[in-house]
Amino acid sequence: VTGSAFGIVGLGLVGGSLARDLSGAGANVIGIDRDGDAVEQARAAGAIAAGGSDLAQLAHADAVILAVPPAATARLLHGLSPHVRRARWITDVASTKASVLAAAGAAGLGDRYVGSHPLAGGTGTGFGAARRGLFTDALVYLSPGAAPAEVTAAVRDFWLGLRARPLLIDAAEHDHRVAWTSQLPQFAATMLGVTLHRAGLPAGELGAGGRDTTRLAASSPELWTDIALDSGPHLLAAVQAYHMALGALLESLRAGDGAVLHDFLDEARRWHAAGSAVQP
Amino acid sequence: VTGSAFGIVGLGLVGGSLARDLSGAGANVIGIDRDGDAVEQARAAGAIAAGGSDLAQLAHADAVILAVPPAATARLLHGLSPHVRRARWITDVASTKASVLAAAGAAGLGDRYVGSHPLAGGTGTGFGAARRGLFTDALVYLSPGAAPAEVTAAVRDFWLGLRARPLLIDAAEHDHRVAWTSQLPQFAATMLGVTLHRAGLPAGELGAGGRDTTRLAASSPELWTDIALDSGPHLLAAVQAYHMALGALLESLRAGDGAVLHDFLDEARRWHAAGSAVQP
Repeated sequence: VTGSAFGIVGLGLVGGSLARDLSGAGANVIGIDRDGDAVEQARAAGAIAAGGSDLAQLAHADAVILAVPPAATARLLHGLSPHVRRARWITDVASTKASVLAAAGAAGLGDRYVGSHPLAGGTGTGFGAARRGLFTDALVYLSPGAAPAEVTAAVRDFWLGLRARPLLIDAAEHDHRVAWTSQLPQFAATMLGVTLHRAGLPAGELGAGGRDTTRLAASSPELWTDIALDSGPHLLAAVQAYHMALGALLESLRAGDGAVLHDFLDEARRWHAAGSAVQP
Repeated sequence: VTGSAFGIVGLGLVGGSLARDLSGAGANVIGIDRDGDAVEQARAAGAIAAGGSDLAQLAHADAVILAVPPAATARLLHGLSPHVRRARWITDVASTKASVLAAAGAAGLGDRYVGSHPLAGGTGTGFGAARRGLFTDALVYLSPGAAPAEVTAAVRDFWLGLRARPLLIDAAEHDHRVAWTSQLPQFAATMLGVTLHRAGLPAGELGAGGRDTTRLAASSPELWTDIALDSGPHLLAAVQAYHMALGALLESLRAGDGAVLHDFLDEARRWHAAGSAVQP
């Protein structure tokens, strides 16, 4: 990446961490953010060489990464084309992919666009939470959409250079899978927090198990509202299935049916054990 | 505890860890388990001085701790009285308390009985998972039932000697609170595992957040079937409330109502933040 110019739009946890990694590797990073303080922090930390709030500053970027929430990504794509004439490829880090690829296509960027979704982050937000190495060993879904093979290869190489693990996946299949594996656990934890709050049980009374189960309740409401609205029928189907499963649990509790309770517990335990065996 | 004789029934994770701590502190520990292998392991590890499968061996114990699952605790209490004539106090470690205290009363042991529920353990089971210091800093609920103050004080001192944090609580109030703070998170995680399994999503595809949310799916099916059946209306009420909350989430997803989604996420985040501030 040495000598290449990267444009990053959004200098929060993900964009800021990308900027730190790329600058650390000798790249020329241009950072764009509506928030002048984030730009100044990133400049002071040596994470960007230049930046500001104006997308016109992307004119000299060889590659552009959009690191803003899903709905903002689609809005941003709408007017991006005049500013990224030089860019060989453009990607994003949004956690839903079909809507972003559609917006990229509508903006006339489809042949240079590959959607990315890095499974990295945390409950911290803003440039202050950004750090080097955030993407090391992280799974990164790549949805090429209409991009030709050489563009897909370039984005794949970009993530490999950050020591991440890129994985090609169709956008609709991606959105289906993450609705179940990422968004459903988020909303299970959120609604568990809401339920305990309304029952008058403070989080401080939880044991280690309850604390783990509700840890995601600390996530950003703004980001996850955005993700949920963008996910549409995928998340709805996942929550419906979970709601039905809890209905079946209620039936077995009402009936005092130990055999069914045991079957649920055993099924989940076997599922967990099979997955743990293949953890990195 | 030096010089005192403690009887421990059940040499699994909790009973075995108690035996290790007490023997390490110079006590004379008698270990009872149906499983001869567990008794031999505990003897070989120096965790017990004597033991076997016969409750009659408790005759010389100055204090007795029942470290078996809730339903087994009540069954054990039924015939325990002739074997614990010398014991000044008897306690247990079951995670529900009202049913255990009722069984202790019915067995004529009420005036020497204080129920304990240590919030310690883990997903390991058996004597092989037992370790010294398991109870250090662990919250231990104590429900005295009909026991006089000096018996309650003795059991409280016992846990303080293990560096645990004993907390007196009425048995019914205890059972209500742990149904929400311990059992509901367990079954939320279990049913999330069941839901993902049936949707064909392996645990290996989860990110860090989903892994935390479903960690409790690894718990023992036998133990938690027992706890759920013993908890009765408390767990039922907690699961009903969670089921209703997920129904409300479904409504907001169907309506695409970002304001309601944001309110749920924000309520849970504030609940979590208030609890985190008082964590030890």
